[in-house]
Amino acid sequence: MKDIQNQEDHRRINIKKVGVKTISYPVTVLDKARSKQHTIATVNMYVNLPHHFKGTHMSRFVEILNRFHGEIGLSSFHCILEEMKEKLEAEAAHIEMSFAYFLSENAAPETLKATRYECSMHGSLETEDELEFQVVVPVSLPLLEQAEPGLPRSPGEWGRAIVSVTFRNFIWIEDIIGCVQQAIDTEQQTIFNGEQRSFSVESLTRKIGTSLAQEEAIKGFSVRVENLARGYSTFATMEN
Amino acid sequence: MKDIQNQEDHRRINIKKVGVKTISYPVTVLDKARSKQHTIATVNMYVNLPHHFKGTHMSRFVEILNRFHGEIGLSSFHCILEEMKEKLEAEAAHIEMSFAYFLSENAAPETLKATRYECSMHGSLETEDELEFQVVVPVSLPLLEQAEPGLPRSPGEWGRAIVSVTFRNFIWIEDIIGCVQQAIDTEQQTIFNGEQRSFSVESLTRKIGTSLAQEEAIKGFSVRVENLARGYSTFATMEN
Amino acid sequence: MKDIQNQEDHRRINIKKVGVKTISYPVTVLDKARSKQHTIATVNMYVNLPHHFKGTHMSRFVEILNRFHGEIGLSSFHCILEEMKEKLEAEAAHIEMSFAYFLSENAAPETLKATRYECSMHGSLETEDELEFQVVVPVSLPLLEQAEPGLPRSPGEWGRAIVSVTFRNFIWIEDIIGCVQQAIDTEQQTIFNGEQRSFSVESLTRKIGTSLAQEEAIKGFSVRVENLARGYSTFATMEN
Amino acid sequence: MKDIQNQEDHRRINIKKVGVKTISYPVTVLDKARSKQHTIATVNMYVNLPHHFKGTHMSRFVEILNRFHGEIGLSSFHCILEEMKEKLEAEAAHIEMSFAYFLSENAAPETLKATRYECSMHGSLETEDELEFQVVVPVSLPLLEQAEPGLPRSPGEWGRAIVSVTFRNFIWIEDIIGCVQQAIDTEQQTIFNGEQRSFSVESLTRKIGTSLAQEEAIKGFSVRVENLARGYSTFATMEN
Repeated sequence: MKDIQNQEDHRRINIKKVGVKTISYPVTVLDKARSKQHTIATVNMYVNLPHHFKGTHMSRFVEILNRFHGEIGLSSFHCILEEMKEKLEAEAAHIEMSFAYFLSENAAPETLKATRYECSMHGSLETEDELEFQVVVPVSLPLLEQAEPGLPRSPGEWGRAIVSVTFRNFIWIEDIIGCVQQAIDTEQQTIFNGEQRSFSVESLTRKIGTSLAQEEAIKGFSVRVENLARGYSTFATMEN
Repeated sequence: MKDIQNQEDHRRINIKKVGVKTISYPVTVLDKARSKQHTIATVNMYVNLPHHFKGTHMSRFVEILNRFHGEIGLSSFHCILEEMKEKLEAEAAHIEMSFAYFLSENAAPETLKATRYECSMHGSLETEDELEFQVVVPVSLPLLEQAEPGLPRSPGEWGRAIVSVTFRNFIWIEDIIGCVQQAIDTEQQTIFNGEQRSFSVESLTRKIGTSLAQEEAIKGFSVRVENLARGYSTFATMEN
Repeated sequence: MKDIQNQEDHRRINIKKVGVKTISYPVTVLDKARSKQHTIATVNMYVNLPHHFKGTHMSRFVEILNRFHGEIGLSSFHCILEEMKEKLEAEAAHIEMSFAYFLSENAAPETLKATRYECSMHGSLETEDELEFQVVVPVSLPLLEQAEPGLPRSPGEWGRAIVSVTFRNFIWIEDIIGCVQQAIDTEQQTIFNGEQRSFSVESLTRKIGTSLAQEEAIKGFSVRVENLARGYSTFATMEN
Repeated sequence: MKDIQNQEDHRRINIKKVGVKTISYPVTVLDKARSKQHTIATVNMYVNLPHHFKGTHMSRFVEILNRFHGEIGLSSFHCILEEMKEKLEAEAAHIEMSFAYFLSENAAPETLKATRYECSMHGSLETEDELEFQVVVPVSLPLLEQAEPGLPRSPGEWGRAIVSVTFRNFIWIEDIIGCVQQAIDTEQQTIFNGEQRSFSVESLTRKIGTSLAQEEAIKGFSVRVENLARGYSTFATMEN
């Protein structure tokens, strides 16, 4: 938001972006264990305003999405962005897609076979593709299995970690989640070992950052850890 | 839903209720400590269909609500219901109102001075008034202040208790919440004493039921306790 | 909620239901056009309290759900309910499942190929199965294609119809939606014909009711039509 | 997110911000007609990480908020930010507050006396205060009062305008909303006059931009107009 030097300059009252948003759509995404996974995405598509945009062009976003029906995923992001740029004669194109991803776990029979993770991807194309992936990893309180009588063992939600990454190479969603989960397990271990008296948003943020920094395929990342307190949350964030 | 004996009988395709819903409105409610509290309510108002209802009568609901502007609360429920019955020539009138209620606590300075509770009231009038009040009380995990090193002390949400009551006499919202909180504290004590190894939805439901049964002003009640597990909740309910 | 005659009677502080809720799970449902459809469901499972229930039995709900992994739908509801009754030694078992259902439409290329409908099913088993199905059908304002200059043609949300049905025979989700949509189209036609000046919640509720009453496969039903006004909704309901 | 040149450089795994979020709190805000208005805010407070931050310092955010209990508003934002910077020894402090604001309207008795608007403010202080205000203004479809028989007159939601402004001078919330509403009315007039056949997100975005550019007190602004289509939204944005 810049200052208005000349309010008469009507050229400055210019549309910057146009598009469609909150389209709910069935999609398939790549799945490490089962090759592909069916899920439901919420999709936003928009372009930096082309020179000769008309309202009727809005339908082109939907036409492009329809053409990729059932086949949307990381791999088709580039093609969709290319087609948006071309069909709408735009300088830059953007697609955002958020979806639930289920991780199949070979856990005990009384544990849910499919754990849900909220994911989102943001792809953009001006001259080069850019892709950012985000996942929310829930942080449960450690169950004190070997705890002495007198200590609560019921589960409960401690909070969550929100991790965004950009890529050098391909990496499975499963491996990003695994990398975050490993840091959570390490934090938990420091508590069992008596090195630390409690989970802390700062310490967990740093551990997740350290864990992500060791992944070759990850180029850049940001981490936000939130702890549900009584009636609100505390949080810490980092970027790299 | 009953079986359709005679599908030709068009008199059975009858409207049963008409009304307005999800009106967001500033209201005041009675507050034990400060005499009254300003909050925002979501209001639903409806009647069992009057004989000569016209669409234009919808505005009467809003007119009645406007007349009680800023003065809606337990005390005015009866007047609103009476006016709805009369102005809309209906056999029965209903009002539902959900709102956030803040409890002021003389706690340590680092604790929030105002704790939020989700409340709702449902009043109806056919020949006699009926009023039901509901409150959601969050259940935190006990903080193990005196815990040995190696045990987590961070807060976290264990779950919540949803309590509905009908009344014999007037009782403050504060006293209903206090009654539920006392049961939660008792449950927590059994854990510290080693009588029980963990919070349980069944045991906490029973303790809250026992606590409410001892309140003279409370006529009937129902209790539902929910525990947030990893990705879902477990629950128990009772009614009295 | 009944009056408490004898507050000493501790047998009355009894748990009524126990279960699990808000489990998010990938499921498949029957699809008229494509034989089956992958979607994501939110599942609640509970039983009327068995005599010898222990907290550890909570995991049995998840075990049963896991066994039907990927195969949950109308057809498996009966088997799941049977297994819940047996494994938890309960008098009655309940399963609720809400999910997004996408209807593929052979529409113009600029229209979304898949339209989302919010659906839910509630099955229960005491001695006999009972199954109720609910769907929310959005009601858009008619686009005045042939309208004179000076009349708005932009789309917008007028409201929605919420329809619950019980069954005599099997009926496709597509056919229930089609039946509701036909009533919406008829209402719209009365406006174009000049018989009526506007959509009305009462009139649309009656038209949907009449339409559902003609479906052989539908045993009973309830209808609720809501119109989004500025800042709130008006509504009418009927039951049959 | 920058590239990781040296993954051994542990100084780069640094916390950037810490704070509290989603605190629900009763507040008062300035009201043009009634001097002040009681409402409920959701508050986030955070600082760029101070050098010697400890987890226990989290409680200072709550202590500061408590001290301004009941008196939070535009006027106290500066004091809160100053205190956050000082007490937490931080380089920069931020406060975000979103709240419902009710506009009292002297309208017909059947119209709601209080119309709800979603507002938010974001204040930050490094060396200088910065304040941004956002409001969401619903856009209803024009009611065609003088319409010929055969044209729908029922209300419905066309969409909404999301407007963010920064300030040169003080301006009432009422006047910002009025400025946006005036642009909506102008757009509607072009339709009644037959100059345009429908509301359009681009045209309405430009009209709101032109209207805001004429307000002396407004320094910079951004506008986003969204139109609810069947199952998704179309939108246009601009910035100045």
